[in-house]
Parts: sequence; structure tokens; C-alpha cells
Amino acid sequence: MAVPDCEVMIIGAGLSGLQAARRLADRHDVVVLEARERVGGRAFAHRFANGDTVDLGGQWVGPGQRRLVGLIEELGATTYPLWNEGEHLVAAGGRLKRYTGTIPSLPVHVLLDLNRMLSKFEKMAAEIDVAEPWAHARAKEWDRRTVADFMDKTGFTAAAKQMFAIGIGAVFCAEPHELSLLHALFYAKAGGSLDALLSVEDGAQQDRVHGDMAGLAEAMTGELGDRVRLGAPARVIRWSGDGVRVETDDGAYTAKRLVLALPPNQALGIRFDPALPSSRDALWRRMPAGACIKCVAQYERPFWRDEGLSGQAVGGAGPVHVAFDNSEAGREAGLLLGFIEGDQARVWSNRDPDDRRAAVLDSFAVFFGDQAREPIDYADRDWTAEEFTRGCYAAFMGPGVWTTLGPELRQPMGPIHVAGTETAREGYGYFEGALEAAERAAREVKAALATS
Amino acid sequence: MAVPDCEVMIIGAGLSGLQAARRLADRHDVVVLEARERVGGRAFAHRFANGDTVDLGGQWVGPGQRRLVGLIEELGATTYPLWNEGEHLVAAGGRLKRYTGTIPSLPVHVLLDLNRMLSKFEKMAAEIDVAEPWAHARAKEWDRRTVADFMDKTGFTAAAKQMFAIGIGAVFCAEPHELSLLHALFYAKAGGSLDALLSVEDGAQQDRVHGDMAGLAEAMTGELGDRVRLGAPARVIRWSGDGVRVETDDGAYTAKRLVLALPPNQALGIRFDPALPSSRDALWRRMPAGACIKCVAQYERPFWRDEGLSGQAVGGAGPVHVAFDNSEAGREAGLLLGFIEGDQARVWSNRDPDDRRAAVLDSFAVFFGDQAREPIDYADRDWTAEEFTRGCYAAFMGPGVWTTLGPELRQPMGPIHVAGTETAREGYGYFEGALEAAERAAREVKAALATS
Repeated sequence: MAVPDCEVMIIGAGLSGLQAARRLADRHDVVVLEARERVGGRAFAHRFANGDTVDLGGQWVGPGQRRLVGLIEELGATTYPLWNEGEHLVAAGGRLKRYTGTIPSLPVHVLLDLNRMLSKFEKMAAEIDVAEPWAHARAKEWDRRTVADFMDKTGFTAAAKQMFAIGIGAVFCAEPHELSLLHALFYAKAGGSLDALLSVEDGAQQDRVHGDMAGLAEAMTGELGDRVRLGAPARVIRWSGDGVRVETDDGAYTAKRLVLALPPNQALGIRFDPALPSSRDALWRRMPAGACIKCVAQYERPFWRDEGLSGQAVGGAGPVHVAFDNSEAGREAGLLLGFIEGDQARVWSNRDPDDRRAAVLDSFAVFFGDQAREPIDYADRDWTAEEFTRGCYAAFMGPGVWTTLGPELRQPMGPIHVAGTETAREGYGYFEGALEAAERAAREVKAALATS
Repeated sequence: MAVPDCEVMIIGAGLSGLQAARRLADRHDVVVLEARERVGGRAFAHRFANGDTVDLGGQWVGPGQRRLVGLIEELGATTYPLWNEGEHLVAAGGRLKRYTGTIPSLPVHVLLDLNRMLSKFEKMAAEIDVAEPWAHARAKEWDRRTVADFMDKTGFTAAAKQMFAIGIGAVFCAEPHELSLLHALFYAKAGGSLDALLSVEDGAQQDRVHGDMAGLAEAMTGELGDRVRLGAPARVIRWSGDGVRVETDDGAYTAKRLVLALPPNQALGIRFDPALPSSRDALWRRMPAGACIKCVAQYERPFWRDEGLSGQAVGGAGPVHVAFDNSEAGREAGLLLGFIEGDQARVWSNRDPDDRRAAVLDSFAVFFGDQAREPIDYADRDWTAEEFTRGCYAAFMGPGVWTTLGPELRQPMGPIHVAGTETAREGYGYFEGALEAAERAAREVKAALATS
């Protein structure tokens, strides 16, 4: 095929790549290459047999996420609050208890212990400069430690540590011992606070988009028209000071500037010629993604509400440690949402889909009774198995990465700029971060093109 | 080009791939594909201006490495002991002291502390089953911790911890906080003991090969003849129960069985169709390689011996924390060898080569005097910058990997078998492990072909 030329090539049609394209398309000739036959990246909607859709990728928007809130308004989409009425459940020590608010009802000494852990974490997180986490006076010390080490040194009771670990699992889809403490502190600060990341009301789980979040990506694609090319995985990127040449399965494209709007593990799947500088290669190789399977069961109606339950639950022995009422406002069906995270996601990733479904429904039944075993429909998505994602919600850093290779994270390499939520200062790991990074990369590209 | 067919395709012409080919070539039709224009993988020899060669990759053979010792004999190569006469030097707290043996001369309370750390580590390592490190009763606990955590909890004095960290750096080319304690224990056991890995006499640094270690790979390639194809990087592996089809830059090859004799990070650079199972993908993404720059300065003669010095030195503030007299027996020139490891390797990887040379010579001068600043020749090799290696000596596992994904490490996937030192039970990280893994993979392939 002929070789098309464009000013800016963007690789990845997730929210970050699409937003970068929108910010550039008014003045510049832009092409977005997407490996899959769909847009949206980590936003993906499933259609149940009855026609309802549900997000099996990212789905929430919180009040602090001003770019995402703005995008939703701009595209004419509307939101509704996640169902948050009634009492929540916590399963611990073989018992099921009801509570309200963000923190489960636990014995007073456990609550005090958990509160102290959270307070200390929040205080440390508040000190981080999200632009330069490595610049904090204690950065080396905190980066040398894992979150598990923080828990061991700060917490006294096993129950408080377990709750803290569940919170970490829910936020990172990774185990506390996998995570650099500095990374976790940065991540919390980048999202406002750990409390904001864990909360429904006033937090990162407050609202949802009518229809589905994946619809935003489709609306953005609608604006961009044939600038977006699906089924075009980038295989080779040849680069020099003059620009890039991107080779895909059915043709090559040249551009003056390139934006990589991909998770680091996906960027590593592309061959660079000349090869990547050692520091960038080493950084990306040290940023594996969390592991997550998102599971949704559809029922005739949200039966748990009859019992005064919110559908929110935490703890338990099953694969699902965190559950939500995911029913869409205005629809009859009731949806229970469960996450299988971290080590549990690795265990269940390779299991038979029917066994997984049964185990998830068992988990729901522990919280909400036997009725939970009889959904009218069920769907789950294992993001570690997706060839062009390989994990959720985001890439994380183990001990020692931020303070040695962190300064590389957002640096352009010649004509190549980096976007994607993993390069965000604000909202790292969230769609908010995807947008923040896109806007920063688009500014870089504009400035570079203006002076060239 | 035409499509050649063979029974067994091996990817990677390092010592592991070549040994697998040798074990199979008598009965089977074998092809070895190598991405580079040279064989040897992490064995590589540099030729100085005066014609002498020196290994800038792996170079040592120890008495416990029976497969490597056997290969050297089989190929008619000969060895000589590393120069180990005279006194060693340790730089600590701004002072330079002489010592003999493996453990530097330090104040008695520091020595006792260091000895206790080493003893405890050795005792734990001795308990590991190298075939199944995850099966130890305390595996989860040890895998949750880093080596830094072990040091913090076991050591009392900063000086002992510093020496322990230098030992870890010398063995792993990684920082203590990057390493799972379980991985370090496994690694020590797989190499005999930590003491064996750190020692010259009776240890992993005892002997060298006359000429160079890279010569072994060339001799193996000589035996294999045109079965070895250079400059043929595998880009795509299409696989099914029936066999594999490997696509390279200039043609495709089909085979019944495939052996991947590559470090995990290089295997990730190949596209698999169908895509890798999530657990294999997750494992390989969690196995980054250590960082190492090997530096050798060549002098008219080994002048340090005049002062009664062995050329072995440890500690100091410069980029080189570990040095050896690397002179080849029977040659006039004196060679000083220094390793830049872990975080220091990352710092110096992107610096100007002349600056790096000057800093390395400064490090040598701290130990051996100003004469060290005037070599007749100098060479170094940054293994993190090599596109088809990306780190040395070997891939390591951070916290939590062995006990969740470890059982995947050596498992075949359909017709695909795995070799390379990172899949070894004995000698993991060493050429010994490359050979052990090769022989295990060759046995698997033979058994599979016998029953097909």
C-alpha cells in the first residue's frame, strides 16, 4: 500500500490516545493507530442477552476528576450516583457484619489500629510532589520499602492489616508486598488521597455514566472519523530526529511526531529501531500491571435492597473480596459487581470459565444469600489475558524503581512522546490520568511542531 | 525464500541454545536461530589493540559447576586459576584496609554481625528445594520479604549491612530491596551456597578459560555447522499442538518442537500467536534482569602485585565496588576488572563513554594508586544497553513472584520448551545453569518426539 504521511501519529485508541488526538486534530494532521478492532482500551462494554450494556472495564467518575467530568459534559453524556443506600457488609473471621461509611464495623481496637495506619499513610502521601516523587527527602527510604513492610511496621492487629490489604488490593489489583511504598503514596496523592480512592460518596467510585464509559471512547472516535484506524497493531517504530516510521501489519506510516498512548508493557511489545535507551527499557520492564478480573451478575431486580443492604461488601474467603451494587439507575435489573484482584486474579485467570462463574456467585451468596446464585445473566473479563492490555487497572512500580528510573517516565525520546494513565501526574491509574497525560503530551507535540 | 522444515527449532545461540542443539543434533534435524551476528549470548570476548582477548561477558568457572567443567574438557579448552595471591583491599568509612580470605577485615563486632547475617542466610538457603522453591513451608513468608528487609531485621551494624549489600550486588547486579528474599535464597542454593558464589578459591570465581569463555560458544557452533543461523531474530511464533512456525526478518521456519533459549525479557519481545497464557506473560513481565557494566583496564604489567596486592578489592565510593586481577596466566599484560552494578549501572549506562572510563579508572586508583589511571587499553560493556540481552547477569524475581507464578517457569507450553539459565534448577544465573536447563529441555524434546 501507499505510504501515508501525517504530522502526528498516535498509537493506542484508549481514552488517552483519543483525547490527545482531539487536542491536536484542529490544527494538525493526526492518525490514531489501534491494535484491536475496537476503541476504548481499558474501557469496554459488554452487552447482556437482554440488551443492557455494562462496563467490564473502568466505569467510575469521581468529583475530583475534573478532566473526566469535563469530557463527559462536553460529549453530552450524563451520570448517576452509584447505589449507596442501605448498609454495607464486611466478612471477617467467619462472621458477617453490617456497617455504614467507608470503614467497616470492626472491634474498637481494630478500628483504632486501622485508623492510625490510614492516617499515617495519608500524612506521608500528602507530602509527595506528584511531578517528582523521587525528590522527596525520604523518597529513597520509602522507595526501598514495600507497602507490606509499612503495614507490618505500622499496624498492630491482624484484622486491621487485613482490611488495609483489601483496600490496597482494591486500589492497585496487586499485593502489598509487590508495591513500593513510595509508589503507593504517589498514587494516593495523584488521586487526591487514599480515602478518596476508596470512597463512593465524594470519592473515585461516586458516579457512573449512563449507558457505559466505553461510550465516551466511541463518541470521541465519532468526532475523529477516519483518523482512527482499527486492527493496526504497531510492530516496528523506526525513529530519528526527523520523525518516525511506524510499521503495522498492513502498511507503514510516517509522521513528524509520535505519541505512545499505551501501557508500558504494551510499548515494550513494539520493536524500536534504533533500540530504546537502556534506562527507558529498564523502566518499562519494571512496570508490570496489576491483575484484575471484573465480574458482573445480572438479576431480575436488586433483591439485596429489600434487606436494607447497599450491595457493597468487603472481605470473605472467596475470590471476590470487594463487591458493589452496579445496577444502572432507571433500569429494572439488579447488577452485582465483584472484583477478583492480585494473587486471586492469577489463580482464577487460567481456570475454567464455568468454575470461575460458580466461585464468584458463591462469593456473592456469602454476602447476599442463596438468591445470588441464580442470576439471569453473567459476564466477566480477565484483563491479564487480553493480549493488548495484559493487566489492570494500571502498571505499578515495585521497590526501587521510582527513585532510580522514575525521572525517565514522562520524558520524550526524540520525536516520541508518551501518554497513557501511567505517565499522569494527576489521576495515575484512572481515566482522569489518561486525559491528564494526553493533554500534557498534546502540549508537548504542539510546542515541538511550532518550533520545527 | 523457501520454507525449511526441521524437527527442532532452537531460538538463541547462547550456551544454553547451543548445548540443547548439541544434545539433539545426533538424532534430530535441528536449526538454531540467533538474533545477533554472533553466537555466545552473555559470553562475549573483546580484542584489545595488542591482540589479547578478554571476556566482557561471563568468564568464570568454579569447581561445583560440573556441567561447565565437563564442557570445557570436552571441547579441549584449558583453565587457569584467577590470580588470588597477595592481600585484598576493602574501602570502608573512608579508609583502605588489607585482608585475606573471602570476608574483609573489619572491626570485630562488625565481623561478628556480618557472620551472623551470612550464617542465617545460608541456613535458610540450605532448606530450599531448587526444583520447587515455592513448596517450602515458609516460602510465602520469605517471598513476601525483600533481601533489604532481611538485612534490616538480621543485621545490627551499618558496616555489616553495607558489606552484605555489596555481596548481594556482586551476585545479582541488583539492589537488596529489589530482590525477593526467597529468590535470593533459591539462587544461593542453586549455586551451592552464598559463600560459594562469593568465593574465588573453591568458589564460582575460581578459574578462567585460556583465551576466553566466548571461545566455547564458537567451538560449539563449529560442531553444529550450518545448523546455526545468525542475524535471524525471531519476530513471530505461531504455535499449535502440531508444532510451530517461526517468522524471522528473512523467512519463516516450521518445526515440530521449539526450544526458547532466551532470557525472559527477550522471549517477551517475540509475538506469540495465539497469545501467551496470562500466567506465562505475567511471570516473564515480572522477571527483569540485573544491571551490569563490566569494565577492564589493560596495563603493561600487573603492577599492584609488586605491593603484595591481589588486585581484589571491595567497597569504595566510586562506581566500581568490586574489582579483580583479571590478567590471563602466561601473558605479560596486567588486567584490572571492575563491575558497575545495580543502581550504579543505571546511572552510568547513559553517560558519556569517556566519563565512564575516567570514573572507573578513578575507582581503580583509589585501590591501587595513580598508576591505575594510565592503562594501555580499556574496554567496557554495558549489558543493559544490548538490545538482545538487556541486562546481566540474569533475570531476578521481586517479592511475590516465585510463590504465585514460579510453577510456570519451566513448564512447556504445547510444542514450546524453555531453556536458558533462568529456567535452571542448578546454577541459575550462571553458564552452569544455561547448560543444566539445556539438557533438561533436550530431554523433554526427545521424549516428546519419541511419543509423537
